[in-house]
Amino acid sequence: MQSLTARARRVLLGAPEETRNLRELTLPKRSALPVFGSDGLSALAYAPDEIIMVLALSGTAALALSPWVGLAIAVTLFLVVGTYRYNITEVARSGGDFAVVTERLGPAAGSAVGASLLFDFVLMVAVSISSASTYLVTLLPVLQGHRPLLAVGLVVLLTVAYLRGLRLAGRAAPVPAWAFAVLLALTVGVGVVQSWVGALGPAPSAGYELVPATPAEDALVGFGLALLLARAFSSGAVTLTGVESVSNAVPFFRPPRSRNAATTLMITGSISAVALLGVLYLARESGAVVAMDPEQLRIDGSPAPEGFLQMPVLGQVVVAVFGRGVVSELLLISTALLLLVAPVAAYIGFPILASSMADRGYLPVQLRAGENRSAYASGALMLGAGAAAVTAAFGADVNDLIQLYVLGVLFSMSLTQGAVLRSRHRQIRRTTDRFPRRRLLRAQAVTAAGLAATLLALVVVLITKLGQGAWVTVLVVAALSLAANATKRHYRRIDEELAVTGRHQYKALPARVHAMVVIPRLRRPALRALSYARATRPSTLEALVLNVDDAQTREIRSRWDAYEIPVPMTVLEAPYRDRIRPILEHVRAARTRSPRDVVIVYVPEYIVERWWQRILHRRLGRRLSRALAEEPGVVTALVPWRLGRENDDLEES
Amino acid sequence: MQSLTARARRVLLGAPEETRNLRELTLPKRSALPVFGSDGLSALAYAPDEIIMVLALSGTAALALSPWVGLAIAVTLFLVVGTYRYNITEVARSGGDFAVVTERLGPAAGSAVGASLLFDFVLMVAVSISSASTYLVTLLPVLQGHRPLLAVGLVVLLTVAYLRGLRLAGRAAPVPAWAFAVLLALTVGVGVVQSWVGALGPAPSAGYELVPATPAEDALVGFGLALLLARAFSSGAVTLTGVESVSNAVPFFRPPRSRNAATTLMITGSISAVALLGVLYLARESGAVVAMDPEQLRIDGSPAPEGFLQMPVLGQVVVAVFGRGVVSELLLISTALLLLVAPVAAYIGFPILASSMADRGYLPVQLRAGENRSAYASGALMLGAGAAAVTAAFGADVNDLIQLYVLGVLFSMSLTQGAVLRSRHRQIRRTTDRFPRRRLLRAQAVTAAGLAATLLALVVVLITKLGQGAWVTVLVVAALSLAANATKRHYRRIDEELAVTGRHQYKALPARVHAMVVIPRLRRPALRALSYARATRPSTLEALVLNVDDAQTREIRSRWDAYEIPVPMTVLEAPYRDRIRPILEHVRAARTRSPRDVVIVYVPEYIVERWWQRILHRRLGRRLSRALAEEPGVVTALVPWRLGRENDDLEES
Repeated sequence: MQSLTARARRVLLGAPEETRNLRELTLPKRSALPVFGSDGLSALAYAPDEIIMVLALSGTAALALSPWVGLAIAVTLFLVVGTYRYNITEVARSGGDFAVVTERLGPAAGSAVGASLLFDFVLMVAVSISSASTYLVTLLPVLQGHRPLLAVGLVVLLTVAYLRGLRLAGRAAPVPAWAFAVLLALTVGVGVVQSWVGALGPAPSAGYELVPATPAEDALVGFGLALLLARAFSSGAVTLTGVESVSNAVPFFRPPRSRNAATTLMITGSISAVALLGVLYLARESGAVVAMDPEQLRIDGSPAPEGFLQMPVLGQVVVAVFGRGVVSELLLISTALLLLVAPVAAYIGFPILASSMADRGYLPVQLRAGENRSAYASGALMLGAGAAAVTAAFGADVNDLIQLYVLGVLFSMSLTQGAVLRSRHRQIRRTTDRFPRRRLLRAQAVTAAGLAATLLALVVVLITKLGQGAWVTVLVVAALSLAANATKRHYRRIDEELAVTGRHQYKALPARVHAMVVIPRLRRPALRALSYARATRPSTLEALVLNVDDAQTREIRSRWDAYEIPVPMTVLEAPYRDRIRPILEHVRAARTRSPRDVVIVYVPEYIVERWWQRILHRRLGRRLSRALAEEPGVVTALVPWRLGRENDDLEES
Repeated sequence: MQSLTARARRVLLGAPEETRNLRELTLPKRSALPVFGSDGLSALAYAPDEIIMVLALSGTAALALSPWVGLAIAVTLFLVVGTYRYNITEVARSGGDFAVVTERLGPAAGSAVGASLLFDFVLMVAVSISSASTYLVTLLPVLQGHRPLLAVGLVVLLTVAYLRGLRLAGRAAPVPAWAFAVLLALTVGVGVVQSWVGALGPAPSAGYELVPATPAEDALVGFGLALLLARAFSSGAVTLTGVESVSNAVPFFRPPRSRNAATTLMITGSISAVALLGVLYLARESGAVVAMDPEQLRIDGSPAPEGFLQMPVLGQVVVAVFGRGVVSELLLISTALLLLVAPVAAYIGFPILASSMADRGYLPVQLRAGENRSAYASGALMLGAGAAAVTAAFGADVNDLIQLYVLGVLFSMSLTQGAVLRSRHRQIRRTTDRFPRRRLLRAQAVTAAGLAATLLALVVVLITKLGQGAWVTVLVVAALSLAANATKRHYRRIDEELAVTGRHQYKALPARVHAMVVIPRLRRPALRALSYARATRPSTLEALVLNVDDAQTREIRSRWDAYEIPVPMTVLEAPYRDRIRPILEHVRAARTRSPRDVVIVYVPEYIVERWWQRILHRRLGRRLSRALAEEPGVVTALVPWRLGRENDDLEES
């Protein structure tokens, strides 16, 4: 049996890594930029759609506002990127967002941000892969109708691929990222020029009419309009998530860590901001339309046919610029690949964060990299399972998943910035030199502005999205955070209980050893257990026989006498056929008689050759050892008999 | 943790029964007749529908033949009942169908008939409850659309109800059975008189047109007609299953067993045969129509509306006779109740059969009533799980399930009759007296005729139904039968291997005892394990420390020296953080050095207070004991530490 799970482990996880190699896992900037920048970049695959879909709720007129929403997001993005360039030094010093928040804002905030980051990683995978599945369906329409299944399958595949070779992913990641960036720059550049000279073609959906889902008059004036814009902003705010990915990945950059991370942040931030504005502008100019519900669309005056497939905005824009052809196909393919590669950052970040939380007692000890044979594998498996579950639960709906994702990311970003603010505040108080103090004050001002921006965005998201699914994030993060605190309490209590404090704790020995051997049937395994027990020369020794059936017990007794076994046999009555309780009670009685002695119960157990044979045996040994474990001062000695194989050399004499 | 499952057991299974009370479970004829006759009687709830549905495949004209199909089934039923009256003496002597076949036709046939009977019980529950769910939907149309869920829920409910109180079921069973029998007799009696005087009303479906599903010309001539009639016959043959139920229940009748069983058989057989004929006759006369696929129906010239509910034939007949009113409602209610009570026979029979198969080594030992704390409960749970699974898999479709059921029952009936034939054949050869010999020869002739009838029916079912799902039965029975044989082989091999044959097997003692104590961390549980090991005064004693982290190991070493622990400490390298393999290799090396000694490995383990805390610990003790069990000559001694509770009185000194 052992070998089966061991083989499965090997196939799934590959060979284990030596402990001394574990800490070497860093990436040069050349790889780090595309690996950790991919997440921010890939948001361009779905963010424009989310903005346009929300605006489209109140009809075509509102679509004209989409570049302005894009501008608001770009400004926020620049602000956050700017503050994170300052934060990163702080974060790198502590070893990550979770560490900096725990140290500066205390364990309650720490467990909250840890829980939130864990869930963010799960959602990063779910959102990215779900979006990849929509691109794959655009490329291969035959997959339509199976999109949720496709997405869940991809999550499973990606998890296995990651487990088998992170390094490979690290090498492969740059290709789609660079291809995507170049093709996107080309599209936006050419497109903007075309639109200035009036040569931009129409988007594939330019002819569609849009039926408002909400009454247009209500939505386009006063509070209605403000709410609509706020909703569009908070959906598009998913573009900010890339900042968080880079910040979390700081430990993975080659030194100088914070410089390299800050550069990556600046580059991907700039590309994202410019590209988002460009795509939204071109979408408006080319008349691209996407609707949350295809029933809003009228094509040549009639409703969209059943199973109608909408093209993502990015795809529509590239078709408008270059027409359907090689460039548009290449951009769609590279987008799909980028979306598949982007979650690699999560597969790297999640296990590290889990390990670091486990190091501090917030998560089960098995998640500590240094404690685990397969190091980071269990974390990656948890991430994969979580992402698959979330993707399945939301039917791989990018629109729904983004609500959850944005809220979590803004929450942890706000906490991190708060922690940096507080930490730097102390530093400023300690600093008296004029120039360093002025530098710190400037950094503090930038961070404060960034915190204001993320807090504002967080409030907007909470107001507009809480009812639309974002409550799931609140619930999950709260539950995870409570569980983390309970875990920490458990470990702390155990540490106190188990600490060796006095000499009496390790000097005392039990007075005597009472050995008991359970004899389920008079066969070789039982006699062997008896031999072993006799070999240990205990103070007292007795054989326990359960009387389930009188005739059977009489037969054991007569053979016992015939074999002249020099051990007294005690018969325990089992009128209810329960084999555990009579033994338990007998042991308890012995303990009561002499509480300073130890009782060792020898139990023969069968070890089967094939796993399915296990169900053919009562597994009395395991069950008894579990029951006896609840008794103080009792040791269970399992004496295995390996069925069908060599057992020992005793009987050969 | 123990207490949670123990409490669940108690709630689910009730208090265990004392062994000496187990064998007292027999029923007087007054209860036995309705309990074991219910199954045969309840077939009237669905058998007429099955016959009419098949004939309806080729249109209205074929329906006129339904009473003739009923007659063929009634004749077969009388023949089989007649032979079983003779068989039952034989069967009762051996202790059931499985026993008689195993003894007379050998273990291969025995395991086949055992597997088939087990599956028949599962299908008895599935068919009965699925049919009950159609009656409940007729009574409460609001349940429509949830029928499969309702049926599975009822199976679960019935299983729990059975586990909690078979006696209650025994007392409750007679009421619906008698009510059903009386109401049915009334309906058929009054209906036949009405039809003779021309006063029989029309069935609710009398006005429906029937569109043939197969071209009517093909179906009503030559081979097509023969096949159609054969199919109708084999569906209706489900009426024969009641005979099997009574025969299986022989051990439950009060003595004189075979007389009482035979009387029950005769009574239910006669009622079933007469009632089936009567219902089919009245259905034809009142124009009752049911179709396998409602799309065959035309109501007032238009197709049946979506979600159209067909009324069972029995319901239609009673409405035709008495109109919609008290009598028809009462009959429908008593039918539903009868169908819910009928499977009680299966809940009694399955665990007994499983226990008897386990006694002979064909099933896991846990199913032996005499071996199990909750006696027959595990068998009943298996039956419930199997029935729920089958019901769910076939969407509670009575039509589909009956194919499986009929085949299994006819197969086991044929084997049983073959066994009786063979057994009596030997008896005849031994008997030389004229009169007893003549009596035996007469019995033999009747059994041969019965065997011919069931074999013929079996062939018809195989030909007409194998493609329609009956292959599932063939597959399941074959797989179960193979598994039973493999199980028996496993037990026989073990019996040989473990038998004590020579004095050297129980006289030899290991030369010396090598004790090793695993020290995962230098805390109180580890030091306590060390104290216990020291108390046993082994020949050699060493403490094993795994070096996962150099700094940690150094710290353990220095504290070890500071405490002046008088036991040598061995450091095992664990470069891959694997805690099992280094210990395994160390133990193996010790065994190789002195193969005639025994190694006892003491492992401290944590016993948590709440089940969820288990995931917070590595459970090294359990994992290590499993791995060490594969090593010959090694005993694992688990030294539990109960977290948060008193552990022993050692440290108080």
